[in-house]
Amino acid sequence: MTITTARMLDDDRLRPAAERLRPDLDPAEVVARAAWSVLAEPGDGAAGALIADHGVHEALRIALGEPGLLVPGRTGQRELTDAQARWQPRADPRAVRDALESCREVGGRLLTPADAAWPAGLDDLGDHAPIALWARGDIEALVGAGAVSIVGARAATPYGESVAGELAGDLAASGVTVISGGAYGIDGAAHRAALGVGGMTVAFLAGGVDRAYPIGHQQLFDRIRRGGAVLSEVPCGAAPTKWRFLQRNRLIAAAGLATVVVEAGWRSGSLNTAGHAAALGRPLGAVPGPVTSAASAGCHRLLREYDAVCVTTAQEVRELWGEDAAPAPATAREDPDRMRLLDALSARTPRPPEDLAPRCGLTIERVRSLLGILELEGTAKRGDRGWTQASG
Amino acid sequence: MTITTARMLDDDRLRPAAERLRPDLDPAEVVARAAWSVLAEPGDGAAGALIADHGVHEALRIALGEPGLLVPGRTGQRELTDAQARWQPRADPRAVRDALESCREVGGRLLTPADAAWPAGLDDLGDHAPIALWARGDIEALVGAGAVSIVGARAATPYGESVAGELAGDLAASGVTVISGGAYGIDGAAHRAALGVGGMTVAFLAGGVDRAYPIGHQQLFDRIRRGGAVLSEVPCGAAPTKWRFLQRNRLIAAAGLATVVVEAGWRSGSLNTAGHAAALGRPLGAVPGPVTSAASAGCHRLLREYDAVCVTTAQEVRELWGEDAAPAPATAREDPDRMRLLDALSARTPRPPEDLAPRCGLTIERVRSLLGILELEGTAKRGDRGWTQASG
Repeated sequence: MTITTARMLDDDRLRPAAERLRPDLDPAEVVARAAWSVLAEPGDGAAGALIADHGVHEALRIALGEPGLLVPGRTGQRELTDAQARWQPRADPRAVRDALESCREVGGRLLTPADAAWPAGLDDLGDHAPIALWARGDIEALVGAGAVSIVGARAATPYGESVAGELAGDLAASGVTVISGGAYGIDGAAHRAALGVGGMTVAFLAGGVDRAYPIGHQQLFDRIRRGGAVLSEVPCGAAPTKWRFLQRNRLIAAAGLATVVVEAGWRSGSLNTAGHAAALGRPLGAVPGPVTSAASAGCHRLLREYDAVCVTTAQEVRELWGEDAAPAPATAREDPDRMRLLDALSARTPRPPEDLAPRCGLTIERVRSLLGILELEGTAKRGDRGWTQASG
Repeated sequence: MTITTARMLDDDRLRPAAERLRPDLDPAEVVARAAWSVLAEPGDGAAGALIADHGVHEALRIALGEPGLLVPGRTGQRELTDAQARWQPRADPRAVRDALESCREVGGRLLTPADAAWPAGLDDLGDHAPIALWARGDIEALVGAGAVSIVGARAATPYGESVAGELAGDLAASGVTVISGGAYGIDGAAHRAALGVGGMTVAFLAGGVDRAYPIGHQQLFDRIRRGGAVLSEVPCGAAPTKWRFLQRNRLIAAAGLATVVVEAGWRSGSLNTAGHAAALGRPLGAVPGPVTSAASAGCHRLLREYDAVCVTTAQEVRELWGEDAAPAPATAREDPDRMRLLDALSARTPRPPEDLAPRCGLTIERVRSLLGILELEGTAKRGDRGWTQASG
């Protein structure tokens, strides 16, 4: 079953396929990253460490067991042997060619970490960062935009979808890219709202970007590709497995400046995304809802157990990453003596200071001086027989 | 206007009135505390400091300016002179007698800090603790019970009243006294639910316990007196002023093991109670609600700005003071290899280990060993042409 690097990479149709897909890049780099995308499952830290230590091409030769290669670096021999046994059964030049050609067929692109459109936050994943991203859509529009991840339950309520739409629409309208997972419910509402205001949105998928999953979002994905991008680290044709959903969640968490969970059940997959965000040190927001709604139970759990920040408006979402922090609301402490004198003033019965003082428990001097201020303000009125509240 | 201590305290009808009200106590103590309740507005720290330093009787002689008395202790001369000027205009033996007699007339009682029924938490208010409490109801039932304060908006929604009722009913049924402020909305719902399950409830009022405020809660207060108590630090006949509402809030916050705000507008008075609780180091809980509901805006503000704990059930309220902390929900991390193998198993198409290994990106050895486990579990099935998911 073992295949040499020569056979794996020097297939005479690989290089042209790579050149067609990314004419601007070294085809050897494109082929090597596509090959890694075929060999390693998302989040394979052994692959990431090998690539970080040796470069993508040399790491591939090591992965395929090229005879005579030394492996200095962080990967131990036993770990490497085990990883090679995982990778080598997948070593098939046709699979790499298929990945390149089917991406090309759907008008897609392969992104590498050196691309300007590569989501910057992904680098924080270290050895678990993706090796390549398969992308469809308006890739250039991704460059440099700030992004927020808005995720939540598939089984969302009208309340949750409405709040997700409000937040995503407001943020997208102000130039923030809205990242989500393309699922039914909250994800869909967030993507749609961003598109609705002419903003940017990105869907990270668990399967290949050539297939719509869920199939009912086929049209939504078409729209996202026109107003943003659909991204995946697995090649076209790859199925969205449970493992890949969980690994996809780490990309959503890493790519956003913050992650906001709008609705989530008690064991929702969105809590997995939230956990990734927290582990990465990304600010985490949770939208509260009725305690009687099971669809908000996961959000309340995030507030209780994960120290998530309660967010209720787009402005509060922006504050998660320190943007436009609104000044703390002025809660002016009312002067207690003034409050007590106002309590003692009647609207109808005139009272002289000597009567007001024991009523409000202040000295007569203090009452006299405060009455002067209240008269200037227009809140107290002096009459022949004493003071009253000023009407209006 | 100055009145001697002799005239103030030796009125020949004061002592009998005190004896009728609390035959078990020293009448001089009862008269002195009733007098302080007349002289000082709630929360008067100068009065509290003087009493702490000199005892309630001696402090009263100092307050009334008895000639020849020295005032060592924390109160400076200037502060004392100012306080005396506040107190002395209220020094009237008739007012003290009225306080004692009108309390007696409504079947009430005067509580002192030495009483077993005195809410223990009030002592944490230090110099700002009440000097006496006027009480009506089943005072003895207050002794030793744990208590929680549940407060919120007068302009509550059906959602808020329902949640307040659920929490208060559950807590009261388990023997926790429910403290609130007797207002419309959340307060009323909390009191009613506690009474509904035959539990204990206490209303702290801003005015005298002889008057129902709000008047629409006359019947509720009648019921509270049978299943708990109505308490106030101002004497019968005293009006519930704005100042007294704010000071009443400190009693609610101090008397509970924790304070829970169920619904509150952005500038709700409940935030004042919450602020007192936080200042006293009492755990503070806030019940979330729809972000679209103005009646929950104050609760969300408490979660954001006051570091309140999000509470959604009575159990979570109990955990505020460390009772019955539920074990952290087990979120068992599923074995990633197992998940990936299950992803690769088809329900219909049998697959041999050599086919499964590249599909899930695991070594053949790992696949074989996991298949053995899955077969034992009954989640995978071995056939002539390979492995499938086991149905059911």
